[in-house]
Amino acid sequence: MTPAKRDALTIAIAGLGTVGGGVVRLLEQQASLIEARTGRAITIKAISARDRARDRGVDLSHYDWWDNPVAMAQEAKVDVVVELIGGSDGPAFETTQAALKAGKHVVTANKAMLAVHGAELAPLAEKAGLALSFEAAVAGGIPIIKALKEGLAANRITRVAGILNGTCNYILTTMRETGRAFDDVLGEAQRLGYAEADPSTDIDGIDAAHKLAILASVAFGTAPDFAHVHIAGIRGVAPLDIAYADELGYRIKLIGLAEMTERGLVQRVQPCMVPMSSPIAHVEGVFNAVIAQGDAVGQSFYQGRGAGAGPTASAVIADLMDIARGQIVPCFGVPHDQLASVAAAPIESHRGAYFIRLMVRDQPGVIADIAAALRDEAVSLESMLQRGRDPHEAVPVVLTTHTADEASMMRAVHRIEAVEAVVEPPHLIRIIQDI
Amino acid sequence: MTPAKRDALTIAIAGLGTVGGGVVRLLEQQASLIEARTGRAITIKAISARDRARDRGVDLSHYDWWDNPVAMAQEAKVDVVVELIGGSDGPAFETTQAALKAGKHVVTANKAMLAVHGAELAPLAEKAGLALSFEAAVAGGIPIIKALKEGLAANRITRVAGILNGTCNYILTTMRETGRAFDDVLGEAQRLGYAEADPSTDIDGIDAAHKLAILASVAFGTAPDFAHVHIAGIRGVAPLDIAYADELGYRIKLIGLAEMTERGLVQRVQPCMVPMSSPIAHVEGVFNAVIAQGDAVGQSFYQGRGAGAGPTASAVIADLMDIARGQIVPCFGVPHDQLASVAAAPIESHRGAYFIRLMVRDQPGVIADIAAALRDEAVSLESMLQRGRDPHEAVPVVLTTHTADEASMMRAVHRIEAVEAVVEPPHLIRIIQDI
Repeated sequence: MTPAKRDALTIAIAGLGTVGGGVVRLLEQQASLIEARTGRAITIKAISARDRARDRGVDLSHYDWWDNPVAMAQEAKVDVVVELIGGSDGPAFETTQAALKAGKHVVTANKAMLAVHGAELAPLAEKAGLALSFEAAVAGGIPIIKALKEGLAANRITRVAGILNGTCNYILTTMRETGRAFDDVLGEAQRLGYAEADPSTDIDGIDAAHKLAILASVAFGTAPDFAHVHIAGIRGVAPLDIAYADELGYRIKLIGLAEMTERGLVQRVQPCMVPMSSPIAHVEGVFNAVIAQGDAVGQSFYQGRGAGAGPTASAVIADLMDIARGQIVPCFGVPHDQLASVAAAPIESHRGAYFIRLMVRDQPGVIADIAAALRDEAVSLESMLQRGRDPHEAVPVVLTTHTADEASMMRAVHRIEAVEAVVEPPHLIRIIQDI
Repeated sequence: MTPAKRDALTIAIAGLGTVGGGVVRLLEQQASLIEARTGRAITIKAISARDRARDRGVDLSHYDWWDNPVAMAQEAKVDVVVELIGGSDGPAFETTQAALKAGKHVVTANKAMLAVHGAELAPLAEKAGLALSFEAAVAGGIPIIKALKEGLAANRITRVAGILNGTCNYILTTMRETGRAFDDVLGEAQRLGYAEADPSTDIDGIDAAHKLAILASVAFGTAPDFAHVHIAGIRGVAPLDIAYADELGYRIKLIGLAEMTERGLVQRVQPCMVPMSSPIAHVEGVFNAVIAQGDAVGQSFYQGRGAGAGPTASAVIADLMDIARGQIVPCFGVPHDQLASVAAAPIESHRGAYFIRLMVRDQPGVIADIAAALRDEAVSLESMLQRGRDPHEAVPVVLTTHTADEASMMRAVHRIEAVEAVVEPPHLIRIIQDI
């Protein structure tokens, strides 16, 4: 501290899209702040991107340009490679491996790569005493990786859950505020640039699942296990569900939830109803949020922007500042050879409350038949709402259950589906009361 | 990383109240977790407290007992002294100074000492390359000091604000939920152990102000400046104010807010109205929360328990784990000799919206007189509510203003007070719209 003037930390940046451009700009803008806080400058030496000609709003002429990021990772004379190419495999993965093998720290925003290959990359980094840092990979505007690896390190974390995809939360928020349908709002989000032309990664829950696998790993000290995340997206959420949720005192959110249970490690991404008393119910628009439950601290809650050049660059540079100070913590909180191996809990063993929306022909006895189907599978009904009455058209019926197990619930749903007056497959949304 | 087996980090604990006992218990309980995450054990060697006989629910017989914490800080052969005595001066301050002078790191939960003496202590620690760590001093259940010093380190923070005292938030929450009066709820909180027998430090805003001074220092890279925190407590908040706030779409919270402005550094602790759209409006009971506004990340929000053995011990041990890993960051984020010196903004220069509650005799012309008083000081009225009508008794009149400056507002209040039909001093609550 108050050290003699130290050499700059030198970096190479692979990938100059929105985030890469943001990192270059923020490093320039905060140069004096960074030096005051770490005692060192952070200096860009080399960059690599596909399109050299593109105007990124920053002067890149004084950096070495590499057409091949892997060659840059191997040969550039820098301390750190910042990987911002994206994608679980291909050039991003090759660049990361090359950098670590060449003795360079890696800072990355690449959630897909870490969720899929994190367990391979951690030993590569740790055996060489190198950082593999990824604060930017999950909820860039919230330093949640640092909170879990360091701030809450004295806790056994029992649950980590959150809103991990801003696009989905924007769509669900807009649907609620306007009453409009999913496709309509998605189209608008695409025009506004909040959703990709191919929106599947976001709206089908893949992106949230990548982030959840990383959070679970850091929270529980287990290897990232993306393959066992149970994933459902938000395409099936109807304006009617949102209206009923409101009436029942809930909000519908795409929740990623990981829990260490006696049945094994639970990891699921699903649209869920959360009670208005939970802070997570009030997270609106493109914001992300995370709830962590620790045995000593109890529940703590974090909210911030999940994406965008500013928040992501802030997270990338925070990682670089840690490296500049020599603060290197094992990638996933505990050393790779101590990452616990925990079997995934079978999804059928899940227990929780459910919301079920049915479309039924309004005829005598239909409610009795539905109630009997639930009773036969020992699922206890909490409430039933049938609002519209129309002898000529199907009308919605909404049920909520007390806590039941997923296997019984699924059997009950099959029974309900077989009721002749039920004209559409039942639509199920999980309710999380204790969040 | 995956290092050779390293020596234990040895510690001495001064003060064995609720928090001290919690630290001893949590260190024992999480021993394997701590060693997995830091590569070292953390071992208690020595302890000191006033009452040796008291049962703290833990076996203390295998630790060296010192009657004098200062002597322990000087002489015990340990790496770290954990100061949990409390109080800005006296034994806590002496123990801290003695430890640092003897070359020992200090971890403390002592907000009063840091708010008042932080600027003296930082050079003592930093010149010797020692940690002076205090995550537990502010909102123990939220790793907010680490978030500001490290996670958000690439940002210029422009504002930090929060609910920093759980006792006040519990009282305000209970008043709103039950409609009961302040004194009544305070008495109950005292019986339940949520408020001290002498509640002044909490309810008059002193405790929140200590924490705010620390947050401001870490956020802005300035020396803690408790002397310039503008402090008002919650004694004056009436059930009527809370009911009107609800009607107007606000919650009343004791808000600590620090802002770097062109007029200087603003630090204020006051009961404020915050809009229901803000996450801070939904923080209930004994929870604490902090909002940080950074130039790159935008707004991020943190919520967790503020006090209690578990959350505070969690924060103390997180600091110890950082020291065990060799992670030592300057006390207030930048080295002590680079802490900026920023003049305090005069409170009269504050600009904001106001809620004013008056008790008036219900007679013709009184509203006109009040409106004229505001107009004469160029304060623009936003809304006016007069609910009850009673020719025989004073009735409440509630006004809200558009943004005005504090000096004009104070002059307007004096004019209003002089209106003959206004029978009590006007009661003012600041409205924070942009939170």
